[in-house]
Amino acid sequence: MRHSRVPQARERIRLYVEAPLAHGAAVDLSAVQARYLDAVRRLMVGESVLVFNGRDGEWRASLATLGHGKGKLAVDEQTRGQSGATDLWLLQALIKRGPMELVIEKAAELGAACIQLVTTEYSQRRGANMRRLRTIAIAAAEQCGRLDIPVIAEAVSLPDILADWPQGRRLIHCDESRAGPPMNEALAAASAPAAILIGPEGGFSPDEQAALAATTFATPVSLGPRILRAETAALAALTLWQALAGDWRA
Amino acid sequence: MRHSRVPQARERIRLYVEAPLAHGAAVDLSAVQARYLDAVRRLMVGESVLVFNGRDGEWRASLATLGHGKGKLAVDEQTRGQSGATDLWLLQALIKRGPMELVIEKAAELGAACIQLVTTEYSQRRGANMRRLRTIAIAAAEQCGRLDIPVIAEAVSLPDILADWPQGRRLIHCDESRAGPPMNEALAAASAPAAILIGPEGGFSPDEQAALAATTFATPVSLGPRILRAETAALAALTLWQALAGDWRA
Repeated sequence: MRHSRVPQARERIRLYVEAPLAHGAAVDLSAVQARYLDAVRRLMVGESVLVFNGRDGEWRASLATLGHGKGKLAVDEQTRGQSGATDLWLLQALIKRGPMELVIEKAAELGAACIQLVTTEYSQRRGANMRRLRTIAIAAAEQCGRLDIPVIAEAVSLPDILADWPQGRRLIHCDESRAGPPMNEALAAASAPAAILIGPEGGFSPDEQAALAATTFATPVSLGPRILRAETAALAALTLWQALAGDWRA
Repeated sequence: MRHSRVPQARERIRLYVEAPLAHGAAVDLSAVQARYLDAVRRLMVGESVLVFNGRDGEWRASLATLGHGKGKLAVDEQTRGQSGATDLWLLQALIKRGPMELVIEKAAELGAACIQLVTTEYSQRRGANMRRLRTIAIAAAEQCGRLDIPVIAEAVSLPDILADWPQGRRLIHCDESRAGPPMNEALAAASAPAAILIGPEGGFSPDEQAALAATTFATPVSLGPRILRAETAALAALTLWQALAGDWRA
């Protein structure tokens, strides 16, 4: 016997909006949102959804009008106050489209505040479809319940990133050569804020490894005895950081 | 300037074979392997690859003949002895095809010894394409350098699994309701061997949660404040186990 889960699912529609949220505010749906609520979710006027904008917490809002690719929400009551996001960056070298989209979705779920794309010597691409990556990040944020959207920043070269590194932020780079200690040991001495750097499939070049080793802020860490694909390394490193130094702690 | 990585890439061709491996042994390639080495990798007779069979460690072997969808390797010397695999099981509820294939690939990379598929009340499917999942696991094992192939077992119902649970093995289940402690805290008291149970998108039913709570071997754990998709939870839990209780430790 399969339980019906429609009522639960209805309760969980969460939408990211840009408008200010406050009791009594009216929020216009985007055309995509209106079509989604209408054709996919079959939401009826009067039913409620959750909305967030990254600034004002999460609110319950009821559908006031819907049709012809337009719709309006009436904001009712706050369900959660805005809380500070985890101060964790992911610096992701450009990789192929499928794995990159996976990294963006999972980094959003795992609570990265910022995803900075990076060009490296062995990067598989020179750029990325930023609009599509941002759409993926918003969908993941809506689904996982976070109250903000990760910032996704256009690719910058690794030398430029190292030359302009913010004071006080640690750079944890996942090192295929296993020169570093296991990541969980390195995190035991961790101080936030931090950034995790993940290379492309071929790893970092000898010049890049030397440049990282020459900084005062970069820490190499190891992610076990097997060779992880770039996207697996990104997910594993984000998981370990959140569990041991981030917002998964009790 | 982009470095050429062809020589490195050549060195890293790893193939899973079923034949016994020993100095001087001859190994027949499968038709798929022969076509891959011929058409994709353009391997020449005399060039070498690495082979493993899950029993005899890893060996360097050189290509003796290749063509017309057939080929033979001559086994030269052992490069790594067979080592004991991590005794970690993943019990994965049936989920949609794309996420399930991702779980299989990443569980292989993250070193799960066995992946047991599970039917639950909210499972999105009733079965899976076992042959395709095994092909994915073999490809991931070849790529990541492990010396064995994870066993993938056909779906069994959760009640049947709980009724026939092996003595001494801990069952760690990732609990969306957050009743359990953070997973890393639960692992601090961990004793191998273990199994990680991941539910389907809708989580476990109230009856299933009660059945788990009624066992002496199941431990609920939490994976942070956000709602993770099933495949993200599987990867995160495997990562934490390997880092804190498995073979990622120094």
